[in-house]
Amino acid sequence: MHTERVRDLAHVGSVQLFTPSPEESLRFFVDCLGMSESGRRGESVYLHAWDDYERFTLKLTAAATSGIGRTYLRATGPEALKRRVAEVERAGLGRGWTEDELGLGPVFLCGDPDGHEFGLYWETERYVPPPEQRPALKNQAARFPGRGANVRRLDHINYLAADVDACSRFTAEQLCARATEQIRLDSGRVSGIWYTLSDKSYDLVYVHDWAEGRGRLHHIAFATDTREDILRAADVCLEAGIHIETGPHKHAVQQTFFLYVYEPGGNRIELCNAGARLVLAPDWELITWTEAERAKGQAWGLRTIESFHTHGTPSTP
Amino acid sequence: MHTERVRDLAHVGSVQLFTPSPEESLRFFVDCLGMSESGRRGESVYLHAWDDYERFTLKLTAAATSGIGRTYLRATGPEALKRRVAEVERAGLGRGWTEDELGLGPVFLCGDPDGHEFGLYWETERYVPPPEQRPALKNQAARFPGRGANVRRLDHINYLAADVDACSRFTAEQLCARATEQIRLDSGRVSGIWYTLSDKSYDLVYVHDWAEGRGRLHHIAFATDTREDILRAADVCLEAGIHIETGPHKHAVQQTFFLYVYEPGGNRIELCNAGARLVLAPDWELITWTEAERAKGQAWGLRTIESFHTHGTPSTP
Amino acid sequence: MHTERVRDLAHVGSVQLFTPSPEESLRFFVDCLGMSESGRRGESVYLHAWDDYERFTLKLTAAATSGIGRTYLRATGPEALKRRVAEVERAGLGRGWTEDELGLGPVFLCGDPDGHEFGLYWETERYVPPPEQRPALKNQAARFPGRGANVRRLDHINYLAADVDACSRFTAEQLCARATEQIRLDSGRVSGIWYTLSDKSYDLVYVHDWAEGRGRLHHIAFATDTREDILRAADVCLEAGIHIETGPHKHAVQQTFFLYVYEPGGNRIELCNAGARLVLAPDWELITWTEAERAKGQAWGLRTIESFHTHGTPSTP
Amino acid sequence: MHTERVRDLAHVGSVQLFTPSPEESLRFFVDCLGMSESGRRGESVYLHAWDDYERFTLKLTAAATSGIGRTYLRATGPEALKRRVAEVERAGLGRGWTEDELGLGPVFLCGDPDGHEFGLYWETERYVPPPEQRPALKNQAARFPGRGANVRRLDHINYLAADVDACSRFTAEQLCARATEQIRLDSGRVSGIWYTLSDKSYDLVYVHDWAEGRGRLHHIAFATDTREDILRAADVCLEAGIHIETGPHKHAVQQTFFLYVYEPGGNRIELCNAGARLVLAPDWELITWTEAERAKGQAWGLRTIESFHTHGTPSTP
Repeated sequence: MHTERVRDLAHVGSVQLFTPSPEESLRFFVDCLGMSESGRRGESVYLHAWDDYERFTLKLTAAATSGIGRTYLRATGPEALKRRVAEVERAGLGRGWTEDELGLGPVFLCGDPDGHEFGLYWETERYVPPPEQRPALKNQAARFPGRGANVRRLDHINYLAADVDACSRFTAEQLCARATEQIRLDSGRVSGIWYTLSDKSYDLVYVHDWAEGRGRLHHIAFATDTREDILRAADVCLEAGIHIETGPHKHAVQQTFFLYVYEPGGNRIELCNAGARLVLAPDWELITWTEAERAKGQAWGLRTIESFHTHGTPSTP
Repeated sequence: MHTERVRDLAHVGSVQLFTPSPEESLRFFVDCLGMSESGRRGESVYLHAWDDYERFTLKLTAAATSGIGRTYLRATGPEALKRRVAEVERAGLGRGWTEDELGLGPVFLCGDPDGHEFGLYWETERYVPPPEQRPALKNQAARFPGRGANVRRLDHINYLAADVDACSRFTAEQLCARATEQIRLDSGRVSGIWYTLSDKSYDLVYVHDWAEGRGRLHHIAFATDTREDILRAADVCLEAGIHIETGPHKHAVQQTFFLYVYEPGGNRIELCNAGARLVLAPDWELITWTEAERAKGQAWGLRTIESFHTHGTPSTP
Repeated sequence: MHTERVRDLAHVGSVQLFTPSPEESLRFFVDCLGMSESGRRGESVYLHAWDDYERFTLKLTAAATSGIGRTYLRATGPEALKRRVAEVERAGLGRGWTEDELGLGPVFLCGDPDGHEFGLYWETERYVPPPEQRPALKNQAARFPGRGANVRRLDHINYLAADVDACSRFTAEQLCARATEQIRLDSGRVSGIWYTLSDKSYDLVYVHDWAEGRGRLHHIAFATDTREDILRAADVCLEAGIHIETGPHKHAVQQTFFLYVYEPGGNRIELCNAGARLVLAPDWELITWTEAERAKGQAWGLRTIESFHTHGTPSTP
Repeated sequence: MHTERVRDLAHVGSVQLFTPSPEESLRFFVDCLGMSESGRRGESVYLHAWDDYERFTLKLTAAATSGIGRTYLRATGPEALKRRVAEVERAGLGRGWTEDELGLGPVFLCGDPDGHEFGLYWETERYVPPPEQRPALKNQAARFPGRGANVRRLDHINYLAADVDACSRFTAEQLCARATEQIRLDSGRVSGIWYTLSDKSYDLVYVHDWAEGRGRLHHIAFATDTREDILRAADVCLEAGIHIETGPHKHAVQQTFFLYVYEPGGNRIELCNAGARLVLAPDWELITWTEAERAKGQAWGLRTIESFHTHGTPSTP
């Protein structure tokens, strides 16, 4: 029996990242990823990816340590937002409304069971490029940078969670996302699960936090238009002294072409390209990868790097 | 005031093409585009693009002339299908139900005001690859062909219409699609409009039929994973003696990287790549291109080829 | 009977370009092509492409008009240089020695019959990158820029000549280059001829100057590592307001993937990629294209743009 | 003091490979690499890469075990061939003349100190494509296949040698090749050295044979036009069940973008792309990599795979 999908949340809007090296992190996002500064407030610098229609893509906040702050999710409309708020409050996970964010109207805050904070919103300010960033083509948010990885937009966020199942239920029920792929260990435990809000094959991911931390980040990913952008970014990161953790290669799970680096603040950043892959089937059947299948490594045989299972931000004591 | 989008139709499922040169057309789709035969029935051969989850992507039917037959659109669920049927019947455009198609359950037929036929459906057969086409990765419909353009999936259909406005209303109201871009002539007439059912920036397009024909086709487009696939396809078509009409280049409208060829039956086929471009904004504002803007040609300055305004299928007397 | 090839000249070293818009031209080469400034002298700024082992790749000289200055060709050794000098002097085309150029030792000047000036040299200064340009890998001349077209090196020069045959003889005999392809009109006249000094399929090209000018330039070309660099450069040029003349497309002659733009000084610049194509055969047979073959346009059917036969620099009155 | 380079050998012409699985190996070279059969003789099938001007690129010979047979090197002319023969005979490494090879005239055989056999020749038969392989463009040897990796030509051969220094001297002196890069261990021993006959940065490589075997092969490499061809080939090999050893990634030494697989006969095959990299400097200074530098892995940080130091063909007992 098919249950019709409710799509109350349209997409991941933006995300906040903490960094103990704010200047170096800023240089990385601007020079290596090709983003632009689109605002400053207090300890935060706002960064914009060239085809993001909203005011900012990334909020980079100077802090004592690395890690992830709020994830902003845009509703599909004001009624949809109300429905989500009601659902979250019903689950007792609401944290109330705020209106403190650059470019955003009222934001409803909530937290997943692991403590990662989400801000749900409808009202948003359209990105208005300054003169030197006005694009030649009117169907584009800002000028194409021609710099580093030329990231087009935020793609997805991968959270570490002590209790993946609890976060998974939250994502499915409170955020009405759809699970598209998962890894199930021989023990029966789901060690990672990929959720989509959109027609992309995933937007939000939970993987098990080996350190049993709380609210930690595995990585944030930005989408490039081509795999060549990612190959070129590898050279750019090499030259800039940015630590390349693994890749370029192709994931078996979700088949994403990837490169993982650590930005200077220590957070893991993925550059990703999905080609023309979308999940258009409204009744897509969840793909389950077994422990044996995962042991084969990535799509073309690369061993999954050990630090993938030991490095999260912030570090745990 | 924002009206929440209803998404009752998930995506373009498949399309029927008529060809007076069935053998040569078949060879083109298999050898040059990298598709595979997935069935035969009467005068039709069914073709499958390697990552299409349904039984077929293209139904190639031998006929006296070229042109487009039915376009199949998949509903987001059984209730959504009922809503669309009710809406179409309310508009007096329904043509009743059929169950005559390979791999599809009940199909509700209807026609746009120009006479192009649509089949709306929910039930569909999952593509089951024969042994020699089983993919190495379980999250993929069939084996990657490594042949010609390696088209991954059907992307969009561009219909010629004597009355674009009427077809546009049908698409917006009966098919509940969203318009993302359009061309408006100085006279005020809309000469082309791009609609999306999904998060892709377009799925269905209407452009004005200069010949005042009925039910004609401008082109059908297939998506490749990379721009390089399209560059390579240009060499493949050159070697195979396939007529390349224009490209590779990048459209200003929708920014698609494109190559247009005529398959041996005479129908125009586009190979397209959108990079990471999606329309994720639930309140995307319709982009309008003026006649002056269009006169600048394509994104990188290529003049729009004259035959773009003279060649449609079938030919008109 | 095979005559063994003499290879006294190793490759095109660098070239001088005149521009009436020196600031804008400089910005183009740095921002759009990804070159770096490597010196200044008088009215000239020296530019370096990231993998050029010599001190400079392009000498950009402010002048009243556009056009090409000296082309520097490096000998394969001191004895080879002597042989070339003797051969040029024997033909009465020598202009004596100079030692006036940044980074170069003694340079022997000569002119082709159309008046283009060449400087033959052996001694050259290795490029020493400043600290901020030191590459991560020691087998690379300078840091990979990750900017614009990322041109790796100068590729070839295409000269306009009133008398192609005379220049062709000069290139074959005095410069001991090998002709690899040519266009022969129905009248029997060679309207264009491609010469190589190296294993590349061409380094120096002469095409007929319709304006019967003297010493004019058709274009200068820079090589990129990938075709994607060229597609990206098209976006970069679009955004920067640089005139794109034609492309991206693939030439039939030499099969080069190309983009032609006019730098702000008016000179035509090509970005080119040859893939893995080399002319390794020591007895390569000259390919001759007929007028009828040329009428088919470029490899994938693009018509050769009209301005290709009307725009040269400097303009003729 | 610069010694002028003698270039008596133009390029690697072709190579013979032994395979205990001839049918499967043949399928690999045809289906996965995109080569075509161009002859059969006895236990050998001849294969042709689409832009090779000679009769064959690879001679695949059924045998009891894997490994490399003769490497054919083409002279730059008949006099050059005589010079090389005299030089080889002077060194006592000649094995006499033969005329037994398909498409080749008289071949002078010789062996390097490790026992790898070379055949030096001048006369060669031009590849004449059968009708179905006639290219659309006359400056190309055969039709572009649009299949698998689309390898354009043989690129280089990497030999295992018990005594790298002895082989290195042979290559420099008898074959008059130029060394462009090497790895020198802390002990002072050169463990790998890259030689070029041409303007490519390398054609012939020797690396130390840990097993102290004789005449063994590390790998044979084919050049593709783009990095994307190599990424696509990774998918093709994955689907075909071909073992991918490592890659795609970029070497630090020589900066080649690579993919290593084992063809079904067990021989290691590299797909490689050098971008626009050439060694044009006639006085290129040999680059030396230290043990510490090599310990950093490949260019983007990939650890050199262990089997790179344990797998050669044929296997040693």
